[in-house]
Amino acid sequence: MNVEGVPHRTVFFDGSRVDLIDQRLLPHRFERVKLGTLEEVARAIEQMAVRGAGAIGATAAAGLALAAVRNEDLDAAAARLARTRPTAQNLFWALRRVLAADDPVAEALAIGDEDAAMCEAIGRHGADLIEDGMRVATHCNAGWLAFVDWGSALAPIYAAHRQGKRVEVWVDETRPRGQGARLTAWELAGEGVPHTVIPDNALASRMAAGHVDLVLTGADRIAANGDVANKIGTYGVAVLARHHGIPFYVCAPRSTFDPDTPDGSGIPIEERDGDEVAWTTGAREDGSIGRVRTTLSPVRNWAFDVTPVALLTGFVTPEGVRTS
Amino acid sequence: MNVEGVPHRTVFFDGSRVDLIDQRLLPHRFERVKLGTLEEVARAIEQMAVRGAGAIGATAAAGLALAAVRNEDLDAAAARLARTRPTAQNLFWALRRVLAADDPVAEALAIGDEDAAMCEAIGRHGADLIEDGMRVATHCNAGWLAFVDWGSALAPIYAAHRQGKRVEVWVDETRPRGQGARLTAWELAGEGVPHTVIPDNALASRMAAGHVDLVLTGADRIAANGDVANKIGTYGVAVLARHHGIPFYVCAPRSTFDPDTPDGSGIPIEERDGDEVAWTTGAREDGSIGRVRTTLSPVRNWAFDVTPVALLTGFVTPEGVRTS
Repeated sequence: MNVEGVPHRTVFFDGSRVDLIDQRLLPHRFERVKLGTLEEVARAIEQMAVRGAGAIGATAAAGLALAAVRNEDLDAAAARLARTRPTAQNLFWALRRVLAADDPVAEALAIGDEDAAMCEAIGRHGADLIEDGMRVATHCNAGWLAFVDWGSALAPIYAAHRQGKRVEVWVDETRPRGQGARLTAWELAGEGVPHTVIPDNALASRMAAGHVDLVLTGADRIAANGDVANKIGTYGVAVLARHHGIPFYVCAPRSTFDPDTPDGSGIPIEERDGDEVAWTTGAREDGSIGRVRTTLSPVRNWAFDVTPVALLTGFVTPEGVRTS
Repeated sequence: MNVEGVPHRTVFFDGSRVDLIDQRLLPHRFERVKLGTLEEVARAIEQMAVRGAGAIGATAAAGLALAAVRNEDLDAAAARLARTRPTAQNLFWALRRVLAADDPVAEALAIGDEDAAMCEAIGRHGADLIEDGMRVATHCNAGWLAFVDWGSALAPIYAAHRQGKRVEVWVDETRPRGQGARLTAWELAGEGVPHTVIPDNALASRMAAGHVDLVLTGADRIAANGDVANKIGTYGVAVLARHHGIPFYVCAPRSTFDPDTPDGSGIPIEERDGDEVAWTTGAREDGSIGRVRTTLSPVRNWAFDVTPVALLTGFVTPEGVRTS
């Protein structure tokens, strides 16, 4: 997708280095970083320089390929990468593919290309859900920054926009890390899609006002029965969408579906450092990046929640739209 | 209520000066400021040095009494104060009372004392809803900082806690200004009530986990039919509480009830500067107060939403608990 008119991919692997956008600096600074070792890649995932289901998968695959090029112990390398984030299904899926491949580098390259192609297909199918003039709500960032290109939940919006349909997007902030305010808003600006940032708690009244026609989100893991683990807050948006009779679709490539987990109760939910809630990072008045503390009290920071399949209208996958 | 073991009131009027806590600095700094003129009082309300239904009412009453002491035009003074915040019912109610009084200073003093007494009564009645061991969720700050003392939604929690009941509180951040993270959490810490701060979008999954037994919120205005205007996000919490079968009570003194507005559709909803969403204020690493920007995109900032009476379990007023 476009950054100031220039096409970019989130993660680019050339066989010897992983080149990725440092998403912690967005929307204030656009910087790409090059990583040459497994440990650098693992830390980039842990520290969320790169985040999002597909982007984590492609980055981890490239990290494991780097270990293979250096003749490191691949099982130990895969175990290191698997410890970075516990919830994202694409991470484990990508590691298994590279471990099983004859040529780890070629496999990692293929994973990146396939990711972009799958997301493009999600966009093509999902665009059929978007009628001219629709107002679409999304949560967190399931855009091209969360994948190698196109994204999952935002791909249908990009496709519809490029088809000439008028589409506007409600972007909720997605506390605590602000992936909506920081990343989704930045992506949509780059593609010229009209959008408005609102606090997470403001979406309900937009729905009550009749100003939300469709909700599209991504997923970090989809259990065999269709229950969806995604960014904390997704479940609440799904309940609100159901209350207001608004269609709610989860957009994801095949790699996000986990046939080995029967339902949502079996998906481990990552709890992250409470400092992510207590401190908010952004650009200071002088443009430098800093953080401010907003509470002195005890904090909990569950990173994901589970939306029961019964609350979904359906899924958008590279194969098409299907109702759940 | 207590601040480091010392009892305080939010607003204290001695007949010639208004002495109030500057709530913009909390929880990082506890400072009281003294205001001597109508214009100082109006600005303190506009800039939210003081906020919350009852505290605004008591402060505005004192400001109008200050104008009376200085023989200023009271109708013009009341009009200036009425322009500060459009949604809060207590503001207009307090101004009408002082305008109609023979002795504006005595009336303003009475408004402050009555506010504290009404909130104490809300606490006494509302404590009956809280059983030992309950986990209560609230939204925004409807504590003593929002009134002269005790608060509305937090008064039952303080009363139950002082009765020796074990009670824990889920405090959502309440973006964009963080009245939950900053003010409610600070209040509860001062009274020694166990509490946990979570992002607004995390409450839904706590409800799904069965970890929320009761929701108590305040109100900025209650229409004749019982529809409630309150801090943005209240409506979403009410929908979620209904979905999970959790009792949802609105706590408010009589002064918040507006018999002249038939239903919620007639309540004006204040839209505030988008910078409140784009920038987050807090304490820097060095302890000074600063702000950081989290988005560069267009923002909307509705300060309130309306919860239809059909979603409420009931009201807690100084007269008692009644189901809606």
